[in-house]
Amino acid sequence: MTFNEKLKTIWEKTNSLVCVGLDPEPLRFPDHLKNVSDSIFQFNKAIIDATHDLVCAYKPQIAYFSAKGAENQLEQTIAYIKQNYPDILVILDAKRGDIGSTAKKYAIEAFERYGVDAVTVNPYLGYDSVEPFLLYKDRGTILLCRTSNPGAVDIQDLEVNGEPLYMRVARIISESWNTNNNCLLVVGATWPSQLIAIRKIVGDMPLLVPGVGAQGGDVETIVKSGQTIDGAGMIISASRSVLYASSGSNFAEAARCAAITLRDQINICRKKVTSK
Amino acid sequence: MTFNEKLKTIWEKTNSLVCVGLDPEPLRFPDHLKNVSDSIFQFNKAIIDATHDLVCAYKPQIAYFSAKGAENQLEQTIAYIKQNYPDILVILDAKRGDIGSTAKKYAIEAFERYGVDAVTVNPYLGYDSVEPFLLYKDRGTILLCRTSNPGAVDIQDLEVNGEPLYMRVARIISESWNTNNNCLLVVGATWPSQLIAIRKIVGDMPLLVPGVGAQGGDVETIVKSGQTIDGAGMIISASRSVLYASSGSNFAEAARCAAITLRDQINICRKKVTSK
Repeated sequence: MTFNEKLKTIWEKTNSLVCVGLDPEPLRFPDHLKNVSDSIFQFNKAIIDATHDLVCAYKPQIAYFSAKGAENQLEQTIAYIKQNYPDILVILDAKRGDIGSTAKKYAIEAFERYGVDAVTVNPYLGYDSVEPFLLYKDRGTILLCRTSNPGAVDIQDLEVNGEPLYMRVARIISESWNTNNNCLLVVGATWPSQLIAIRKIVGDMPLLVPGVGAQGGDVETIVKSGQTIDGAGMIISASRSVLYASSGSNFAEAARCAAITLRDQINICRKKVTSK
Repeated sequence: MTFNEKLKTIWEKTNSLVCVGLDPEPLRFPDHLKNVSDSIFQFNKAIIDATHDLVCAYKPQIAYFSAKGAENQLEQTIAYIKQNYPDILVILDAKRGDIGSTAKKYAIEAFERYGVDAVTVNPYLGYDSVEPFLLYKDRGTILLCRTSNPGAVDIQDLEVNGEPLYMRVARIISESWNTNNNCLLVVGATWPSQLIAIRKIVGDMPLLVPGVGAQGGDVETIVKSGQTIDGAGMIISASRSVLYASSGSNFAEAARCAAITLRDQINICRKKVTSK
């Protein structure tokens, strides 16, 4: 199955567009996990077990592992999801981008070493920097288009031939790079008008939408702006608002509640909620 | 000492603008290193010992390590340089780029975990994605401006207000982001006219120039196009043409010869060669 086929299947199975971003920050872990050698894995495992029926994807952010030299716990986390919840997609949030020969190595890192279903990639270096990812036809390549951070205006909003750069990027990817139908775009949730503009350009291409929750995106406007005609088309990601819903020993239950709330807030606004 | 001060010191000490990119590819190693458990480190160590008096910097490309799950050998390689040749700068080629909270983690990865002097960063996400790196005032943040790969035209050459995006990026970094005087730019060696344009914008900001050697950049035009008035201003990087100058057991000697040749080709064209 291709990434998009798997995505459609899991959207229907869990009736959820929610993705939980795994940004494990040991300083924010509950006390009982603070002096555990594999605390990052244990934290992730508890979050995953508590939310697996509520999500379409998990999105581990590799920087949180790399900063700690904890690549092994990233491997463990991904293997745990794959073994126990094989339908759930795993997106490696790595925002890689380099010349072709190096990009091949990054594609191996994501798709072979970690074995993820999709990876986030930066488009600034152009097609040959993205092609090694696209050649994995059954995997998703999720390209940065318009991100959710304040500085996104600095480069992404520069005007190119009468439209902002991010719209041009969306157009290039949609028209030229998506020949294997395995491109997705990252579109931040902070400015819904951008979701509307990008949705018009890319048709039903799935969008990864981070920035919900701690980053402040409003769920209703996001869903109404970005959904496809069948009420899907988005992987809506929340990280800190779910992971750290409680700092106590009940963190996993609190994460479950936050994920349920988000799923339901989204589903209320979807054009047609697919029920099993 | 700041990165730029260290760079000036090592430029003068070795009388060399050459940087050797460490892109270790085990399939290309000589036979005697092929079944060694730490072959990547052993290969790098041999290259470093053979070239340390000929270079201003080493630039390990992290993707080559990550694809193999060999972060430990990256740590070993960097520690080896720091212990044995402490004046030589180490640039982590990682091309990181993410929202501020994640960029902090990537800055920790580069500057604290690996302890490098500088790291390459992608500017597409804007200022707050770069700031966590810039806050390490004694380290260098080397921002992608115009890269050396064929696909660089796709996004970087798009016209923004009458000039290509990469020139606008150079202007933004030079005018707004470089308040700690620790920004550098990556400018590929494939089109010297771009080096000339960028040099005009950024004054004497040091440029990291990859694409010499295997990627085909011509040394004379690069040096004449990119040097500052004192005949420096560039870190000129070659990887494959040095590392794999020979595939036999004499690979380190062959790398030394290739590095000498490159250093001398560069020095012949410099406005003023500083001699000790």
